[in-house]
Amino acid sequence: MKRTALIMAGGKGERFWPESRISLPKQFLHLTDEKKSMIQLTVERIHPLVEYEDIFISTGEIYRDLVKEHLPQIPGENIICEPEGKNTAPCIGLGAAHIYSRYGGEDPVMIVLPSDHLIKQTDVFIKTLDKACHNACLGDNLVTLGITPTYAETGYGYIRFENDAVNDHDSDIPVYPVREFVEKPDKVTALKYLNDGRYLWNSGMFVWRISTLRKAFEIHLPDTFKSLEKIRHSIGDDSYKETLTHEFSEILSESIDYGIMEKSENIFILPGRFGWDDVGSWPAIARVNETDAKGNLTRGNTVLLDCDNCIVKGTDERLVAAIGMKDTIVVDTKDVVLIAQKDKCADIKTLLKTLRENDKDKWL
Amino acid sequence: MKRTALIMAGGKGERFWPESRISLPKQFLHLTDEKKSMIQLTVERIHPLVEYEDIFISTGEIYRDLVKEHLPQIPGENIICEPEGKNTAPCIGLGAAHIYSRYGGEDPVMIVLPSDHLIKQTDVFIKTLDKACHNACLGDNLVTLGITPTYAETGYGYIRFENDAVNDHDSDIPVYPVREFVEKPDKVTALKYLNDGRYLWNSGMFVWRISTLRKAFEIHLPDTFKSLEKIRHSIGDDSYKETLTHEFSEILSESIDYGIMEKSENIFILPGRFGWDDVGSWPAIARVNETDAKGNLTRGNTVLLDCDNCIVKGTDERLVAAIGMKDTIVVDTKDVVLIAQKDKCADIKTLLKTLRENDKDKWL
Repeated sequence: MKRTALIMAGGKGERFWPESRISLPKQFLHLTDEKKSMIQLTVERIHPLVEYEDIFISTGEIYRDLVKEHLPQIPGENIICEPEGKNTAPCIGLGAAHIYSRYGGEDPVMIVLPSDHLIKQTDVFIKTLDKACHNACLGDNLVTLGITPTYAETGYGYIRFENDAVNDHDSDIPVYPVREFVEKPDKVTALKYLNDGRYLWNSGMFVWRISTLRKAFEIHLPDTFKSLEKIRHSIGDDSYKETLTHEFSEILSESIDYGIMEKSENIFILPGRFGWDDVGSWPAIARVNETDAKGNLTRGNTVLLDCDNCIVKGTDERLVAAIGMKDTIVVDTKDVVLIAQKDKCADIKTLLKTLRENDKDKWL
Repeated sequence: MKRTALIMAGGKGERFWPESRISLPKQFLHLTDEKKSMIQLTVERIHPLVEYEDIFISTGEIYRDLVKEHLPQIPGENIICEPEGKNTAPCIGLGAAHIYSRYGGEDPVMIVLPSDHLIKQTDVFIKTLDKACHNACLGDNLVTLGITPTYAETGYGYIRFENDAVNDHDSDIPVYPVREFVEKPDKVTALKYLNDGRYLWNSGMFVWRISTLRKAFEIHLPDTFKSLEKIRHSIGDDSYKETLTHEFSEILSESIDYGIMEKSENIFILPGRFGWDDVGSWPAIARVNETDAKGNLTRGNTVLLDCDNCIVKGTDERLVAAIGMKDTIVVDTKDVVLIAQKDKCADIKTLLKTLRENDKDKWL
């Protein structure tokens, strides 16, 4: 079985501002590991299963050099730059076009992964992913990894699976048929899903054979498929960039979940029990790192007095001093310091909008 | 009547850290005025009453150049540098020695003022101070200005005055005999003083003739007086600095309130109704400056979202962003940012102690 992977690294990561910037989004930050960025950890994590030369990175043109810098082991021609963001369906379709162009005859398995999630137990992750690969090859299966909910999160999509696993009853990693994909629920619904036991969080991780995905695009997103085929035929030609830019400008912006998964048959899901965290915002940093006895997480030069449950990220040059703060995020950088209540971190996007509207783009 | 003034500018101003530093204490900051420092405002304020050449500045040796820079109009020989801080009695006594040495024969009035307080109504202040000068010349009177309490402050000393003013009943600035000086009260006592109506806050502003003060020192602090006389005799000699250093090392550390005022007769007080504020800590800054509709005071580059009653001091270079903060002080400087709950600002001193103990002196 030939395995390939597409790592999606086009995100802007506004939620980690001011450490993340337009010029340095989340996937390039050291949020969960002092030495390695999120994207470096993602690549290292799947390397036991996929050779570097078979790992493709999807990103934006402005991040090409950053990707090269963070991932020198990945061949330059495996960095696929989208001319513009059109959500996950075109992103994955473009990746599939490149993989098909290179390995089409072998009908390889394609693993799709976000570049900025944390997985604590790599061995369990690899075992689960391997099982997903095998299931993907059993037929025209679209396979996804789900995460067992641990609380009633309203920020994720959920996936409802059928009661009976399709594989051996003695397997420690069951494979379930998917009944339906559901959008981000309200609090009451999320609680219902949590207690139901047959719902998993949508992790955005997928596994399928190239031929399976191509068929799904052809059936469910035929116009997108036509554009992607034109792009695929231009790969290796001088016309590639022009074709890519033109077709992408016309292509429908669509998520893979809504555009393909929700409309398909033969969807399977494997519960991921490998310590997953999407590290979606500043408060998550305290969840995935060790804190002191008062629940504070500190980095860089800091001095805290009478503070509880705070995240204080200083630098090696400046000093951050905090007195009497509770549930507060402080992120200091060379040119910006952010102070936010933990439960208001989602408003960073609004704040960035304000900056844009007030000609303060230099701090974005 | 010859008028002189001694402005006490030896304070370390820890409470305005990190804007104030060991190398730049409060009196040199622009806390209440964008263009002028506290000490510049103090000197300008009394200039209608006292010539620049008759204004003396008491400070520490390390601040001599800063005083010169902030007050080029004051003659260099009027800058009196204490070898070490010994509280207000020796400070004022040393100032008196210099003034007596220069103008002794004229028995000038000596006005003593802190260098770091705010007075909003200069005209009323000058009128009050002028009246105090006249009262000081009526006899051997030690005169002080008190502030009518507006709330039950526990951080100030209080002064109880006698019921009947000694001057004209039709005067808009009454002069009362003082019954007693009282130390900083607890909350219950402060409330009692507030409601009593015969208590004023001790402002640390005094007026007396040089001869009156010299007599008071001779009676109540005879050892200190002897040391001060030795210093006085050395003024203008090469031995001055050595004498000053030696005598100051032996001199008793004592406040003028405890050492002289509380033990003296013939003390008078004038209620100061001129918009006084000692600007004693960060929260006071919001009290003496205009805030926005949500009670926020901002300076420099800032962006606030859903914040109330905050003080956010940025710089012209960096950006301070705050989300969802209430009653919080944020002070950003070139090398330090402080975040503190308003009611915990007094703990800055503890924080600085922690820095000292952890070899982080460079940020003091």
